[in-house]
Amino acid sequence: MDFGAFLLSLGTSALIFVVLMLLFAWLSRRPGNVPIYYSNRILKGMEPWEGTSLTRNPFAWIREAFTSSEQDVVNISGVDTAVYFVFLSTVLGIFALSSVLILPTLLPLAATDDSLKSKSRNATETVSKVTFSQLDNLSMANITKRSPRLWAFLGAVYWVSLVTYFMLWKAYKHVSRLRAQALMSADVIPEQFAILVRDIPSPPNGQTQKEFIDSYFRRIYPETFYRSLVVTENSKVNKIWGNLEGYKKKLARAEAVFEETKNRPTNKTGFCGLVGKQVDSIEYYTELINESVGKLEAEQKSVLAEKQQTAAIVFFNDRVVAALAAQSLHSQMVDKWTVTEAPEPRQLIWKNLKIKLFSRIVRQYFIYFFVALTILFYMIPITFISAITTLANLQKAVPFIKPIVKITFIRTILESYLPQIALLVFLAILPKFLLFLSKAEGIPSVSHAIRAASGKYFYFSVLNVFLGVTLAGSLFDNLKALEKKPNSIVTVLATSLPKNATFFLTYVALKFFVGYGLELSRIIPLIIFHLKKKYLCKTEAEVKEAWYPGDLSYGTRVPGDMLILTITFCYSVIAPVILVFAVIYFGLGWLILRNQALKVYVPSYESYGRMWPHIHTRILAALFLFQVLMFGFLGVKEFIWAILVVPLIAISLVFGYVCRQKFYKGFQHTAVEVACRELKQSPDLEEIFRSYIPHSLSSHKPEDHQFKGAMSRYQDYAAISAA
Amino acid sequence: MDFGAFLLSLGTSALIFVVLMLLFAWLSRRPGNVPIYYSNRILKGMEPWEGTSLTRNPFAWIREAFTSSEQDVVNISGVDTAVYFVFLSTVLGIFALSSVLILPTLLPLAATDDSLKSKSRNATETVSKVTFSQLDNLSMANITKRSPRLWAFLGAVYWVSLVTYFMLWKAYKHVSRLRAQALMSADVIPEQFAILVRDIPSPPNGQTQKEFIDSYFRRIYPETFYRSLVVTENSKVNKIWGNLEGYKKKLARAEAVFEETKNRPTNKTGFCGLVGKQVDSIEYYTELINESVGKLEAEQKSVLAEKQQTAAIVFFNDRVVAALAAQSLHSQMVDKWTVTEAPEPRQLIWKNLKIKLFSRIVRQYFIYFFVALTILFYMIPITFISAITTLANLQKAVPFIKPIVKITFIRTILESYLPQIALLVFLAILPKFLLFLSKAEGIPSVSHAIRAASGKYFYFSVLNVFLGVTLAGSLFDNLKALEKKPNSIVTVLATSLPKNATFFLTYVALKFFVGYGLELSRIIPLIIFHLKKKYLCKTEAEVKEAWYPGDLSYGTRVPGDMLILTITFCYSVIAPVILVFAVIYFGLGWLILRNQALKVYVPSYESYGRMWPHIHTRILAALFLFQVLMFGFLGVKEFIWAILVVPLIAISLVFGYVCRQKFYKGFQHTAVEVACRELKQSPDLEEIFRSYIPHSLSSHKPEDHQFKGAMSRYQDYAAISAA
Repeated sequence: MDFGAFLLSLGTSALIFVVLMLLFAWLSRRPGNVPIYYSNRILKGMEPWEGTSLTRNPFAWIREAFTSSEQDVVNISGVDTAVYFVFLSTVLGIFALSSVLILPTLLPLAATDDSLKSKSRNATETVSKVTFSQLDNLSMANITKRSPRLWAFLGAVYWVSLVTYFMLWKAYKHVSRLRAQALMSADVIPEQFAILVRDIPSPPNGQTQKEFIDSYFRRIYPETFYRSLVVTENSKVNKIWGNLEGYKKKLARAEAVFEETKNRPTNKTGFCGLVGKQVDSIEYYTELINESVGKLEAEQKSVLAEKQQTAAIVFFNDRVVAALAAQSLHSQMVDKWTVTEAPEPRQLIWKNLKIKLFSRIVRQYFIYFFVALTILFYMIPITFISAITTLANLQKAVPFIKPIVKITFIRTILESYLPQIALLVFLAILPKFLLFLSKAEGIPSVSHAIRAASGKYFYFSVLNVFLGVTLAGSLFDNLKALEKKPNSIVTVLATSLPKNATFFLTYVALKFFVGYGLELSRIIPLIIFHLKKKYLCKTEAEVKEAWYPGDLSYGTRVPGDMLILTITFCYSVIAPVILVFAVIYFGLGWLILRNQALKVYVPSYESYGRMWPHIHTRILAALFLFQVLMFGFLGVKEFIWAILVVPLIAISLVFGYVCRQKFYKGFQHTAVEVACRELKQSPDLEEIFRSYIPHSLSSHKPEDHQFKGAMSRYQDYAAISAA
Repeated sequence: MDFGAFLLSLGTSALIFVVLMLLFAWLSRRPGNVPIYYSNRILKGMEPWEGTSLTRNPFAWIREAFTSSEQDVVNISGVDTAVYFVFLSTVLGIFALSSVLILPTLLPLAATDDSLKSKSRNATETVSKVTFSQLDNLSMANITKRSPRLWAFLGAVYWVSLVTYFMLWKAYKHVSRLRAQALMSADVIPEQFAILVRDIPSPPNGQTQKEFIDSYFRRIYPETFYRSLVVTENSKVNKIWGNLEGYKKKLARAEAVFEETKNRPTNKTGFCGLVGKQVDSIEYYTELINESVGKLEAEQKSVLAEKQQTAAIVFFNDRVVAALAAQSLHSQMVDKWTVTEAPEPRQLIWKNLKIKLFSRIVRQYFIYFFVALTILFYMIPITFISAITTLANLQKAVPFIKPIVKITFIRTILESYLPQIALLVFLAILPKFLLFLSKAEGIPSVSHAIRAASGKYFYFSVLNVFLGVTLAGSLFDNLKALEKKPNSIVTVLATSLPKNATFFLTYVALKFFVGYGLELSRIIPLIIFHLKKKYLCKTEAEVKEAWYPGDLSYGTRVPGDMLILTITFCYSVIAPVILVFAVIYFGLGWLILRNQALKVYVPSYESYGRMWPHIHTRILAALFLFQVLMFGFLGVKEFIWAILVVPLIAISLVFGYVCRQKFYKGFQHTAVEVACRELKQSPDLEEIFRSYIPHSLSSHKPEDHQFKGAMSRYQDYAAISAA
């Protein structure tokens, strides 16, 4: 790709961004669009915007984002979101600090050397002609081999690494404090009073699972055990409950239609309402609901009595004891009575709870193996796409498109966007699949499964996208060269890095201009919302469902950012211009997502920043990759002091180890000193207990909460309220 | 070494053993020797032997050893000793079960083949003449290459492995139950009420370390915290106390001499009592004692007030809470307030407690590195010794000794014992050094340090002795062969294994006949005791010191047994005769040590079987080495189905992983269900607390226990006694 194509691509992206931003400024002020642009505030019962007038400054959101404090984010969107912003600002800091020193020194050094020109002069002698653009003059590719200027590049590797260590250390400390503060909260957090117990052995004869669990914990914690909730096999009751909820919605819809049109709506009873007998909808659904309620009650009873599983949630009346219990070995045989902190009620993956320890381990390894296979097999199409979509290669492969490609405009467009779009589409399919796999590992909570999926996605994207694209292009080019003399993988990678610099620059630019433009303007959700509202929605609930925004979904966002981060690290010294793009990416991301977090997205769970250790490790992994590649690349430049990168690699490993030792366990468990703060009010344990009962099992009459079987009776409660 | 030499060596050893055993039967019945042969029983206040008459059967000890139950061992010598017997009987079981199938099948198969004979026939063609004895005819060396008989040997590898898995699984379960039962004890175990807290941060201004610790734990455990004992810097007070105790002993001695001789003893005050002024001993030491008591009291005050360190032992009034607290993260920053279960008071390595977490980690890695170096440098002399002490090599190196060596008797003796004795002496120097290194890691308890040293010793002995001897001999022989064609390490090892079979057979025989003979007869302690009693001891305390037996010292015993175990595993299929020797070794060991454990040795600490996971892992490591070597050796025999050993290697790894997952944590921590059993009586917390005060700090007047400064005042005690 030549420099013109690059500039054009950049220009187009910037234009799209400006258009989307103006669109946002205009659209977000129209009252009809309020649920799309201020959904979180509405759900929290706040005014959509603080100034009441619609005539306010269209760019006020920028000021609002900048003036919002971290505490605001925690209050409105939770600790996890705040941690995501710590991530963005840390990375922004790393790249900003890096560029302060690197840009003014390395760019002039590269620009004033002339390795490429002299190569071009000798180009007639070499086999394949290499094209170089103006951009390449600013990169390390333009430095002569064995030049003393390489000292500056070596120094830059050190500078980037040191800045990263410093920022990461600060960030880990900060996040650790953030987590501790949230956990110290004087408000009652239900999951702090509960632990999750799995791998419960079979009860002795004559005892139910429930009685067995209660007696076990009552003996150990005679004063602090409150009650237990045995996990049950709910698939059937869930289905009945799902049907019931569906009928209720349909009834509400039928009633709304009736009110509107004054005609009693009808529907067919067969498949999808398309075949079968025509019936009166309101009567039909009312009847179905009555029938389902009966079935539900019968099934609820049978579930509680007969379908008890080998897992339970155990409640304590003291959060220090719960924190202690969640961290302590209960049974002499480690694979019995395994305990963990209870996840939030909304996060529980109910059907995973009963899976036994060794089954979980086997599943985990099996899935790791399967994911490794997936990564390998995805590599094949990606390699193919990236090789094909280089126009030069395309022409070689399909000669008849040459005339089309000759038209400058089409050529430029194709060259600029084709590979990147192919990549983006490709990566969009994967996350759900990885999340499905992670859940199959037997992980008990949603946030944990998302972290696991996110990790897999990171390794996937770094291995396939970054290394894949880099290597594949160069392998395709150098296939013949390789046949002649075998090269080590690091050397091949290092040699092919500079050639792909422009590709990745364009990729980053596309991501931030178009990606963040779409993010801010929310064009697609807006259109869908208006279409649904106009043609489909009949009831209030349906309208709300149409605009409900979902969460920030950092499970896929973080690996995406991580890919950018990895690319930027690896090019930060080779083609320092990328630092500018990265600073824009993370800066813009911070600004726009701050707005979205404060006003749009609704967090769907809270894990108190447990994502951070994963983020930290992966930033370090990216740094590690960068250092290894730079070692290789300085080696390719025949610079013997490349050896000085080796201590840096060792420091990265030690740094990672020290951070893990110092911080990690604080994220894995709730520290006791954190759990022992006083509460504002004594906790309503019955309410905490009830929050863990699945919807499908909770009674529809509020006074009817005297569960038998799987749930123990009210007790010790008076004592606690008195305390 | 030829077969004659081997038989001679065996015969001599057996003779020595019989002599030592008869000596034991005779000596142990003489009343004057009772403290040497029944020391543990005396210290426990029991009769030396049950039958009162001295005319009892001289071999009654054998019956007593066989009829003693595991519970007897636990009662008399503790869980650790019982676990050591589980180890012996497990290994005995493994080898006995293995030999049941292996000896009747493999020996005839090997004896009826004729690979060696045919080789000998061709010997004129080969460069170096290989000598083979009758023993070698019974080994795998006698099997022709690619023979179908190798299937039987492959099967034997499977049989040995399966037997080992089965026995290890059973043993781990058994030991786990043993540990749980001991920890469930209804007696008060002081360390179950305490935790060890290290890495305590500096107290805020105006607070002492002590106040800071108390307020921290009182906030977290308002009802169960009892009091704390801050670790102090005791080196000076220990020195004063040591001097004081020395003076007391000398005074008692002087008084005893005075009583005996009616002459007031005198001594010189200078260096070692050799120079200086002549003084009256009784007056002199009385004066010194009075002076020291004053100094001690002053120093005790200053230690408690000013020398508080960043570690403490914290006491709870509930052992469930102590067990929970010892396993739980206390501070959000993992490197602050680190907790572990408190070791027994007598086990505490007081001066290590103050070492900080990261310092401990650094020390640990540094020492690992240093030990690795030691292993390498010890390898050099051992290699040299083992190469030299093969007579054939000795002759090559020092030609003038040839005439001496020609004398058959000397030759035989030299050939039989020289290498083995060199090895034994060599190995005797090491353990203390490794224990010193392990303590320098910052480990808080003696038993833990001993485990760490024992692990190092195991790797040392396997790497140096077993692999070293095997490899070195063959390298020395094959130096020229190696120069011609490079071989892989496993192949070299596998080829040289059969040649060293006789060496190791002799080594094992020497160990059990002479080693256990000396062990049982206790000739050396007996002689030392009588000499001391006659010429040195003046007071009762001195006599007791002279016969005090010490503990079983399994820290060095286990690695020694492990070496035998490793050797036996590796030869079990190659030269199955070794199984007979191993069965005798472990059987005899069990019998003789049972006697010693019940009657002689006094355990110096109790770790409730925490040694077992280490033993287990190392047995598995030995099995793993065996499997890898057999893979190599079957490969050397050009048997293509050698590949079938690979799944076995994988199974070993999985087995190790599963055992670790299922059992290990139960050894690392006290399981809560184990700690929650009811006690026979409510614990005397003040006594528990006092048991942790170092001798040098405890007051000499019993009523004077109101420590200020480092020890908190009596409190909450009334509440507990009332409960």
